[in-house]
Parts: sequence; C-alpha cells; structure tokens
Amino acid sequence: MKDIGYYNGRMDALEHMQVPMLDRGCYFGDGIYETVLMSHGTFHDIDRHIDRFYQGTADIFLTVPYTKQQLKELLLWVSSHSEYKEQFIYWQLTRGTALRSHAAKDLSPNLWITITKASLPDFEHTLKLISVEDRRSSYCHIKTLNLLPNILAASQAAQEGCEEAVFVRNGYVTECSHSNIHILKDGVLQTAPADCHILAGIGRFNLICACRNLQIPVLERAFSYEDLLHADEVLLTSTTKICQRADTIDGHHIGGKAISLVKKIQRLLTFSEIASENTPSIS
Amino acid sequence: MKDIGYYNGRMDALEHMQVPMLDRGCYFGDGIYETVLMSHGTFHDIDRHIDRFYQGTADIFLTVPYTKQQLKELLLWVSSHSEYKEQFIYWQLTRGTALRSHAAKDLSPNLWITITKASLPDFEHTLKLISVEDRRSSYCHIKTLNLLPNILAASQAAQEGCEEAVFVRNGYVTECSHSNIHILKDGVLQTAPADCHILAGIGRFNLICACRNLQIPVLERAFSYEDLLHADEVLLTSTTKICQRADTIDGHHIGGKAISLVKKIQRLLTFSEIASENTPSIS
Repeated sequence: MKDIGYYNGRMDALEHMQVPMLDRGCYFGDGIYETVLMSHGTFHDIDRHIDRFYQGTADIFLTVPYTKQQLKELLLWVSSHSEYKEQFIYWQLTRGTALRSHAAKDLSPNLWITITKASLPDFEHTLKLISVEDRRSSYCHIKTLNLLPNILAASQAAQEGCEEAVFVRNGYVTECSHSNIHILKDGVLQTAPADCHILAGIGRFNLICACRNLQIPVLERAFSYEDLLHADEVLLTSTTKICQRADTIDGHHIGGKAISLVKKIQRLLTFSEIASENTPSIS
Repeated sequence: MKDIGYYNGRMDALEHMQVPMLDRGCYFGDGIYETVLMSHGTFHDIDRHIDRFYQGTADIFLTVPYTKQQLKELLLWVSSHSEYKEQFIYWQLTRGTALRSHAAKDLSPNLWITITKASLPDFEHTLKLISVEDRRSSYCHIKTLNLLPNILAASQAAQEGCEEAVFVRNGYVTECSHSNIHILKDGVLQTAPADCHILAGIGRFNLICACRNLQIPVLERAFSYEDLLHADEVLLTSTTKICQRADTIDGHHIGGKAISLVKKIQRLLTFSEIASENTPSIS
C-alpha cells in the first residue's frame, strides 16, 4: 500500500478508511495529534514527538490507552506497510464515540493513524510569507484538532501565492499557521517564548540546540513585525520544513544577509536529525 | 428509526453511520454547524438557524452547495424518518475530503445531519454554574467545529456537579460553554454585546424580543462577574434551554429576586416559539 489509514485496529488504503460519525473528533475537534517525518528508515525525533503527544493529551484530560513504547511500536508497524521511502506519519487520539454532548463522560479513546508521502525540504528554496492578525485561543501550546484559524490563514497565504502566514498578536510575531518562525540579527537567534501563544515545535527545539552548538546566542523573547522586516535572516521550522529561509513578507523583501550562517545551521540540523535517532526496532 | 445519521445522501441508524477518515472535519474541525429543536411538529426558528448557518459558512469562505430552501427540505425529510416526537436536529458542513493540507483547495463540501431525541426544558429547574477563564479565540461569533475549550469548560462544570460553565474574560462575562447568559437587574435585561467573543444565539435574540415586548429595557453591554453575583436573576438561553434561571455560581447563591418577571418572559418565549413558526411543508 501507499497511503495508509489505521483506526482502532483496522487498517486499509487511506481513501477507503471510514470512521464512526459519532467520533468526538468529527464534531468537536476533541483530540490531540502529532506528526513524524520518516526518511531513510529514520523516524526523526519520534521520542520527542511521542513525549509531546502525551503532554498534550494530559493537558486536555485525555488518557492514552497505550504505553509510549506500545504506541511507538504501533506507529512503526503501520508505517512498515507503506511503500513510501519517505513518509509523513500522522496520528491523533480522540476522546471517544458517543452521542454529541459537551461534557465528556467515560469513553474509550480512538486512535487514528495515517501514512502519506513526504518529501525532504529543499534548503535552497526560500519561502514567501504574508502576515495575519493572531485571533487564536490561548491554547496554541497544545496540538489540538481545533485548527480552523490556522487553515484560514494558510488558505489566505496560498491565495496570495505565498507559502505561509505569520500570526501577529498586538504587533508581536507568535508563529506561523503550521511552522515556528525565528529571526537572526547581529549573530543572535531570536524566537517567541514557549508560552500559550505558540506550539513549541520539535523543529524549534532542534534549531535552538543547533544554534547553541554553533555558539550562536539564543534569545527566547517575542519580536515585532518591524524586527522581522529588518532581520538578517527569517527562518521557519516544522516537522517537514526542518529549517527554511523566508525571503518575502507582505511583498517586502526580508532576510538574505546571513546566508552562510543559515547554511551552517541547516547542515547541523540535517546531520543531527539523522544521527540523533537510531532506527527503532520493530517488535 | 430513532437516532438517524445522514452523510452526503446516505442515511442509516446513527450508530451505524461511517464517514471518510479524510473528511477535513475529522482532523481540522474545518466546518460550521447548526442545531434546531423540533417539538410538536414545529421546527423552532428554523429559518433563523439556516440564515445563521449561511452566514457562518460565508465567514470561513465555505460555500453551501444548496439553496436555503433545499437545505430546509432536506432537514425536514431526514427528520421525518425519526420516530421521536421531540427532536434535536443537528447538521454540519465540512470543507471536503482530501489528504491533510492546511490550505484548502477546491473541494466538494460534505453535509452531515443527525437526528436525536430532545426534551423540552423544565422552567422550574434552576441551573448550577461555575466560572472559568475565557481563553478562547476571537472567532466565538462563528459556530465552528473548534469546540475544545467549550468541552473542557463543560466537563469541568459536570465534574463539579454543575450544569454550565460561564466564561469570564478580563473580569467580564462573555457566554457559557453552550448557552448565552444574561442578567436582570432593577427591571433591565443586560447581556454581552454580539461581538467576536460570543455566539449570538437565536435564544438570545428571542429573549431580547420577548423583553422588548414586555417593555423591559435591554442593555447590550458586558457585565462583570460581580454584576452577575448581585443580579436579581441570571438567565441562560440556548436552543434546548430556551430560557432557564440559574441559582448558583461557584457555590454562591445568585438570582431568585424577580421570579415572577422571569415567568412572564418564559411564557412569552414558549408561546412565541410555538406560534412564530408554522410547520414547514415537506416536499
């Protein structure tokens, strides 16, 4: 198979997979998700993604009915059925199946997994951005299925021929619709603090580690839209982007003043991503 | 049949209904919903609910592939297959079925309908409330499927033996997890303004109309948690509550000082609800 869907023990080609209409994920967005990139047989940062998943489910009082090891083995097992060499592994846990009622009762959670084709990012490609007002909730630190504001922002970016939308809250940059965003200025990396207005990405974590490794000071403090306009470089991180440069926002040229430093960071990230995780065994 | 599910032309007992795993409602909450109460053959305020549904879909750039009349006839037709005399009619439109990608492309929307059992509210019953911090987005005026903060609040209320959670933003009351909330004080009805922090309910609209009919002045201005504590009455409105009194918040006794005025309002609401809508014909 190529694209695969898995739901509570059932597995089939993704386009054939059906789920109960009464899954609370379908009408409340009552669940938590995660994604992992698999390339060359390596499941990048899978333990960190699983740790964050457990934290997110705990944040919404949802209990994962598996140990971390069981979940990891299941993800690898489902992944092993796909022909794709580079995979985007997505999973979500929803609170259960029941007649619609806001207050959650004692339900058995549902596990959804999909395996689709991934491709590694082209670090030579630079991204075009737009900015949008950040009107999202203060639950952005949790990877929930409530993603409509992100979708609206991403769709607006696509309509304007751009690849990402940057959320700006009270003049300060928080994150993008499905990436974290950072600036390099005078040799310092600056990124928004990991509070309730951003999802503290694994890519962001890796970038901070790479910078520290390269003796680049890291400042976890909100930066403004103006700061972004005048940055030496603007970097976006995510599971699939790893770390890409942006060159335009709202039609203004940005960055491009510290390309060699970015290349050093990207090399380290690529190397560390591949080296930091051994291919987990499939039992 | 009793509980019924309908999805894009398929209809079956609700517990048997399945939907595609790749419906964007399932992993992004990318859709808009509505509810209508049917009792004694009357679909209460169905035209207003349908109007609001079209406004909500437009707000998220989602085009309904039916005319309002077609949608109404379809809802009535599905409803006609249920044995329940009092029905909770729920529907949602999601943006379509596709591999997960934030930016929405040209997709064909999916229509979901469920019919479940409803019961008319007991106006003698008074509600127990808790307050919670309102950390939701500024999209509360749109009836989207992104309801996790509402679920968490409602679940907390239930755990504390209460029936609703009141959202408080910067000291001011916005709404409840699935109701609007209002106070009566010195013969004046006060309710939060219909801005992006509340869903302007049809029940709220009916309450305002009833008050005007009874020469009760209506003030659409935010009231504080303190105002609520000292109100003569605290009223909750929703599709299923119509208009119920609350008597407790966070363990403090509230209201109970203008019961006869509330009874006048409730009588008018019940009468107008039944009288304002003729049973629509089913073609």
